[in-house]
Amino acid sequence: MSERETSAGGAAGPPQRVVAFGGGHGLAASLRALRLCQAELDLDITAVVTVGDDGGSSGRLRAERGALPPGDLRQALAALATPGKQMPGTSVATADLFQHRFRPPGPLTGHTVGNLVLLGLMELLGDPVAALDHAAAMVGAAGRVLPMSCEPLGIEAEVQGADPAVPDDVLTVRGQHAVAVTRGRVLSVRLTPPRAAACPQAVAAIAAADWLIFGPGSWYTSVIPHLLMPELAAAIVASPARRLVTLNLAEEKETLGLSVAGHLAALRWYLPELKVDTVVADEKAVGDPEPVRHAAESLGARLTLAPVAMSDGSARHDPAALGAALVPVLGAGR
Amino acid sequence: MSERETSAGGAAGPPQRVVAFGGGHGLAASLRALRLCQAELDLDITAVVTVGDDGGSSGRLRAERGALPPGDLRQALAALATPGKQMPGTSVATADLFQHRFRPPGPLTGHTVGNLVLLGLMELLGDPVAALDHAAAMVGAAGRVLPMSCEPLGIEAEVQGADPAVPDDVLTVRGQHAVAVTRGRVLSVRLTPPRAAACPQAVAAIAAADWLIFGPGSWYTSVIPHLLMPELAAAIVASPARRLVTLNLAEEKETLGLSVAGHLAALRWYLPELKVDTVVADEKAVGDPEPVRHAAESLGARLTLAPVAMSDGSARHDPAALGAALVPVLGAGR
Repeated sequence: MSERETSAGGAAGPPQRVVAFGGGHGLAASLRALRLCQAELDLDITAVVTVGDDGGSSGRLRAERGALPPGDLRQALAALATPGKQMPGTSVATADLFQHRFRPPGPLTGHTVGNLVLLGLMELLGDPVAALDHAAAMVGAAGRVLPMSCEPLGIEAEVQGADPAVPDDVLTVRGQHAVAVTRGRVLSVRLTPPRAAACPQAVAAIAAADWLIFGPGSWYTSVIPHLLMPELAAAIVASPARRLVTLNLAEEKETLGLSVAGHLAALRWYLPELKVDTVVADEKAVGDPEPVRHAAESLGARLTLAPVAMSDGSARHDPAALGAALVPVLGAGR
Repeated sequence: MSERETSAGGAAGPPQRVVAFGGGHGLAASLRALRLCQAELDLDITAVVTVGDDGGSSGRLRAERGALPPGDLRQALAALATPGKQMPGTSVATADLFQHRFRPPGPLTGHTVGNLVLLGLMELLGDPVAALDHAAAMVGAAGRVLPMSCEPLGIEAEVQGADPAVPDDVLTVRGQHAVAVTRGRVLSVRLTPPRAAACPQAVAAIAAADWLIFGPGSWYTSVIPHLLMPELAAAIVASPARRLVTLNLAEEKETLGLSVAGHLAALRWYLPELKVDTVVADEKAVGDPEPVRHAAESLGARLTLAPVAMSDGSARHDPAALGAALVPVLGAGR
């Protein structure tokens, strides 16, 4: 509190409302960083999560029961939970229980406890948002987790060389998992159904936000989907919030051949009205910063270079380092 | 508190330690009644639960993953949870979430959320007792739930007429579920393995108890199994606690042809050293009380008749009525 009061010039105002978009590990890294920022900044965090997953445990629950795929939602909840925080009388954090994955054998193999709890809550309460608020209370989450839509979505892509036998042919690849692991070059991506309804609470959070944060994450299957949903895209464009993009540390299968600057161009391609204030990139991963700086400026953004990668050489963001890079950005101009 | 102080003559002593034995719906009724007694008596409640179930969700988890069958443990936890008590920010009690059962279609059909959470906790913590203490904290249970053994047990019975084609033949029926629904007459019942280890915390609770409570419940598959485990039987006989038996309201398939008095004789048959202080029976269900009174006295017990059945005519105990019948018994002679 004293730190925040110092950084805010002695006056603690209302919390800054931050909405982070994404899915999977990238969003989890962003949320862990934001949770750590709460030590210095008064942040009200909302995650808006993709619901296009059709692989693994989520894919099975979706195919078998028509469920909203819970995996990315669960990961976001676990990222917002205070590590090691336990209920009185218990020896393990509920977030760690949620992350426990059943090993073989048997039909439960691959499911996590948290996916099944979320499924049960969604069935019992009949409302994914109420279910997520309940689960957030269970894990003691330092923020809210919302789905981008209350219905499962599909992701499709036009991919050149999806079939290595005909490398020049453009084929339609259907399903988030198939797009994420495609061996070809993604030319375009779209949601099905094309005009699905956005989660109303997500639209409201975007309208009330001080900051919108995109990435890191699988660019075509976790970051861009939010821009493909007309209602969300309109809310993002209309929001008075400032916008921050955190760039990835390495190419993924789905973005093979897409440069770092190309990631920013892709955002603009799918949502031409998108203006960005700050782009955060790892100074080592970005290589020559000039093309990235130029791409950032074309979105109206300033490029912030900082060491945000894990020190072990893996292509993952270090939540503490990313948090340290975000604090001066989010704390400026209050 | 003031009521308890009045009933205890103005001086609140240490809580009375009550251990309730059983499984399934019968034990749940007993625990609900005991939880309601806590409004007037200071009770420290421990449930010691059978782990022989091999049917339904529990049976599948046991067969597929070698799990301690969680269903009866979950029911005991739900019975001890305060109804409608919710975590802040949530709209449904965690106990109700635990009781939510997945409907068709798909491989999750028939599992409850609580069974899967217990399974996850047992795998994660590697200790069923720690898992149950964790789950008890999650649902806010007004007592502790322990398995009679930390390993799954089998139940076998010699049954006359198990095969209607040869009604006089005695066949061995294997498995709790098969015994519970047998169409023949159960002549004897045994556990496999015959000398399985008892849960140490259950043995300790029995040794420290002021009251041991048996029944209601499926007599051969939920009540008597505790007497069949040598370590538990020895602890029951050696305990300084007083003992109470709550009789069933109706015959079940497995006890077809067994009179009310015969239920008491069966306890004595399997554990001849068992002494009982009080037998509680429903005054309507018991019919002519004299044979039952005689059977109770042969165990050293006084018969207490009270209206403990649900008023809807179903053969289920009304927890409030059973609690009202238990209060003067458990509260006497403090």
